Amino acid sequence: MCRNASGVLFGLALTCFPIFARMMGNQDTICALATANGVGAIGVIRVSGNETLKIVSSIFSKDLTKKQSHTMHFGIVSNQSGEAIDEVLIAVFQQGKSFTGEESAEISCHGSPYVQQQIIQVLLSAGCRLANPGEFTQRAFLNGKLDLSQAEAVADLIASQSKNAHNIALKQLRGGFSSDLKDLREKLIHFASLVELELDFAEEDVEFADRTELKQLVKDVLKYVSRLATSFELGNAIKNGVPVAIVGAPNTGKSTLLNQLLGDDRAIVSDIAGTTRDVIEETLNIEGILFRLIDTAGIRDGAEEIEAMGIERSKEKIEQASVVLCLADATLEHSIQGVSDWKAELQANHPNKKVEMLVNKVDLIEKVPTEGIAISAKQGANVEELKGWLVSAVTGDFDMANETIISNARHYGALCNTADALEKALNGLETNVSADWVAMDIRQAMFELGTITGDISTDDLLGNIFSKFCIGK
Amino acid sequence: MCRNASGVLFGLALTCFPIFARMMGNQDTICALATANGVGAIGVIRVSGNETLKIVSSIFSKDLTKKQSHTMHFGIVSNQSGEAIDEVLIAVFQQGKSFTGEESAEISCHGSPYVQQQIIQVLLSAGCRLANPGEFTQRAFLNGKLDLSQAEAVADLIASQSKNAHNIALKQLRGGFSSDLKDLREKLIHFASLVELELDFAEEDVEFADRTELKQLVKDVLKYVSRLATSFELGNAIKNGVPVAIVGAPNTGKSTLLNQLLGDDRAIVSDIAGTTRDVIEETLNIEGILFRLIDTAGIRDGAEEIEAMGIERSKEKIEQASVVLCLADATLEHSIQGVSDWKAELQANHPNKKVEMLVNKVDLIEKVPTEGIAISAKQGANVEELKGWLVSAVTGDFDMANETIISNARHYGALCNTADALEKALNGLETNVSADWVAMDIRQAMFELGTITGDISTDDLLGNIFSKFCIGK
Repeated sequence: MCRNASGVLFGLALTCFPIFARMMGNQDTICALATANGVGAIGVIRVSGNETLKIVSSIFSKDLTKKQSHTMHFGIVSNQSGEAIDEVLIAVFQQGKSFTGEESAEISCHGSPYVQQQIIQVLLSAGCRLANPGEFTQRAFLNGKLDLSQAEAVADLIASQSKNAHNIALKQLRGGFSSDLKDLREKLIHFASLVELELDFAEEDVEFADRTELKQLVKDVLKYVSRLATSFELGNAIKNGVPVAIVGAPNTGKSTLLNQLLGDDRAIVSDIAGTTRDVIEETLNIEGILFRLIDTAGIRDGAEEIEAMGIERSKEKIEQASVVLCLADATLEHSIQGVSDWKAELQANHPNKKVEMLVNKVDLIEKVPTEGIAISAKQGANVEELKGWLVSAVTGDFDMANETIISNARHYGALCNTADALEKALNGLETNVSADWVAMDIRQAMFELGTITGDISTDDLLGNIFSKFCIGK
Repeated sequence: MCRNASGVLFGLALTCFPIFARMMGNQDTICALATANGVGAIGVIRVSGNETLKIVSSIFSKDLTKKQSHTMHFGIVSNQSGEAIDEVLIAVFQQGKSFTGEESAEISCHGSPYVQQQIIQVLLSAGCRLANPGEFTQRAFLNGKLDLSQAEAVADLIASQSKNAHNIALKQLRGGFSSDLKDLREKLIHFASLVELELDFAEEDVEFADRTELKQLVKDVLKYVSRLATSFELGNAIKNGVPVAIVGAPNTGKSTLLNQLLGDDRAIVSDIAGTTRDVIEETLNIEGILFRLIDTAGIRDGAEEIEAMGIERSKEKIEQASVVLCLADATLEHSIQGVSDWKAELQANHPNKKVEMLVNKVDLIEKVPTEGIAISAKQGANVEELKGWLVSAVTGDFDMANETIISNARHYGALCNTADALEKALNGLETNVSADWVAMDIRQAMFELGTITGDISTDDLLGNIFSKFCIGK
C-alpha cells in the first residue's frame, strides 16, 4: 500500500483546524465606556459592529456613514427627544481598519460619568447592546486581527505595573511569542514530514530518516519548549510582583532595612499618577521588577516580632514569600551562626524559595563576615548589592532583554503538555516504536501549541479568557 | 464744544478692552493625561502647542507634521532608547482646528497607568511641559475659542451629576448664557448712545433722549439682570445638590419615609456606572434635580433620635439644610399641632429655608389632616406628591427648560454688581443728575458684565478659575 506522502501532514492539519470557527461580520453592534471610570477631562465610548456608523449617525449632528476611516468629526450627540447631551468628537473606523476589524467608532465626550452614562443609554436606545467584558478584543481575535496570545497580552499590558511586566506584555502583543510558536510549529512539521517518509516506506523496513537526526530535532524543540515553560516562574513573578519576606529577631534592623529599601523608591514612585500610597509603601521596583514586601506594616511601625528569631510569627510570611531575607545581627555573638543554621533548614524545607542571609550592622564590627550579604541598613552600605541579589534571584539565567518570557498560566500549562508529548515522542524514538506512535505524539504536541495562539480553541476557553477582561476592552 | 458722537462709546470700548490681552501662538507645548486616572481599556494623553506634531513625531513611528487635521494614525510610541512603549492611535489637530486653537494631538494608548506615565515621561523628555490644571481650556479661552463663561461651563459639565445640572452647564458651554450677556450688552450700548446724545448737547441744555424712555430701558435691563442673579440660588442648588433634612420624633416613620424615597431611585441609580453605593444611599434624583439627604446614616439604621421632637439632635442637620421636612404622626394626639407650631417657629427663624410639615401614617386615621402634606410612608401614599413639592420648592417660578439659570458664584457676584450699578444709574436718572454720572454707572455695569465672559479679566482671576480644573482639561 502506497500512501500519499502528505497523509500525516494532512492529518495534522485537520487536527489543528480551528475547532471554534472564527466568525466574520453579522454580529450585533456593541458599545461600552473604554476609558477608566471616574471624572476626567475626556471619556471615550467605543462602538463596534456592522451598524456602528448608522446608529452613531442617528444620535449625532452629522452623517458619518460615508466618512473616510481614521477621520474625526466634531458635533452634538442628542437623545431621542432631540435634547443635546454633549459636544463630542467622533472617530470613524471603517470595516477592516479598526481594532476589532469591524466598522467602529470612538466617541470622545466630556469626562463626566453622567454624560458618559447618558450617551451610552442613547446608544442602547438606538440599537446598540452593552459589550460584555473583553468583547472588543474577542471580536478582534474572531476576526483574525490578533491571535489568542496577543489578545491575552492586551489585558496583561493594561495591568502591567513595572517595566519588565510591560515589556513581556508588549512583546507578546506585538507577536514576539506568536512568532516563537510559529518557529516551533514549523520545526514540528519538518519533523513530522521526516516521520512521514519513514511511514511511507515502513513495509520495506527502511529507516529513511536517520533516527539519530530525528532524536536531535525533538531534543532541540523539547529544550526550547522546556525553557519557555521554565520562564513562567520568572514571568509570573514579574507580572504579579515577587513576594519578599524580611524576617529576623527584634532589633536586627528590619525596619531600618525596609526604610533603606523603600526610601529612594518611594520618592520615584510618588511621581507616578494613579498609584496609591498604600501600594507604594509595600512595593519596591528594582530594575523594572516589582517586589512585594509582605506584611511590612508592623515592621514600618517599628513593631518587630518579639520572639527570638521571630520564627513563629514569620511562618505565615515565609509561606507566602518566594524570596526570604533572614536578618542576622553582626554585633551579637551567635547571631550569624544561628541565622545561618536556620536559613539552611529553611532552604532545605522550601527548595523552591530563594533564601539569603543578610548580616546587618557590619559598620559596627571590624571583620566582615564571610557568609551571607554583609550590609549596614543604617548607613545604606551594600544595599545596592542586596538589590542586585534580589534581581538575579528572580531572573536567574534568563536574558530579560532578548529571551521570550511567558507570564500566562494557560500558556505555561499548554507548554508543559507540549513538552510531555515531545518527551513521549523522544522516548518512542529511543525505544524504536512504530512511526505511527511517534506521529501521534507529535500531533498532540502541535495541538497543545495551537491552543496558545487560538488555532485550537473552544467556546469555554474563549469565554474563560475574555470574561476576565474589563468591559470596554 | 462739539464732541465726537462716539466719545462715550469709545470710552466704554476702551474700558472693556481685555486687560489681560489674549495671546496667540508662541506658547510652549503642554501635555497631560486627559482621561480619568486608573485602569481602563484605553487612556488618552493630550498634547497642545506650536511644537506638538514635531515632538509627537519624534517619539512615534510615523511623521505626523504634514498630516491633515482630524485624522488618526496607528503606530508605535518609543522612548529615547528606541524601546517600544505602546501601540497607539494618534489624532492630529492642526492649528486653528483644535479645542485649544493650537496645533494639538491626542494619543490613545492602552489604559494602563504604567503605560500612560511612560508616554508622558517620554513626551516631557522630548520637549513638552506637563500642563497645569485647566491649561488646555485656558488656552482655548486665550485663543478666543471659548469665552470665560463657556470655559467655566466645561468644568461644570464634567462635574454634573444630574440632568438639570448637566443642562445648565451644556447650555452655558454652547453659548446660551454668553448670548444673553451679549443682548444685555447691546441694550446697554444703546442706552449709552442715548446718554451720549444728551451729553453732546449738554451745553444747549437739551434733554435729547426722553428720560422716561431711558428709565424704562434701565428698568428692563435691571429686571433681567436681577432675575438672572436670583436664578443663582436654584442653579447652585441644582449644581451642588439640594441639602434636605428629615426631622421628627422617634417612630414618626423617618426611616420608612427614607426607604420609600430612595427605593425606586436606588434601583435606577445602581445602573449608573461610577456612582458609589455610599453616595447613592444619601442622594435622591427627582426630575433631574439632586437632593442630598443629610445625615441619613442613623435613620437608615433605624436609629432615630431619642429626644422628643428630636430638635436638639436635629439642629445641626437643619443648619446645613435648605429644605427641612418635619414629620408629624397622624395617630398621636397633639403631634400635628406640636409639629405645626415648631415648623412655624423654624420658618420664622430661617426665612430662607423651605420648611414643610409631613403628616405621616394617614392610612391609620379616618380624617385627612388639612395642614401639611399627608402621607403614608409605609404604603407610599402621596410620596409622589411630596417629590413634586420638593421639586417646586427648589425651582420656584423658574422655567427650567427655557430660562437661563446661572450656577456659578463668580457670575452671581458680577451680576449683583451689575445690578448695583444699574440701580445707581436708575437713581441718577430719577434724581436728574448729570448724564456724565449716569454714563459712569453704565460703564461700571458693562465692566461687570465683561468680567463674566472674560472680555475683562486679570491674571489673578484666570489663575483662580483655571486652577480649579483638573489637569488634562
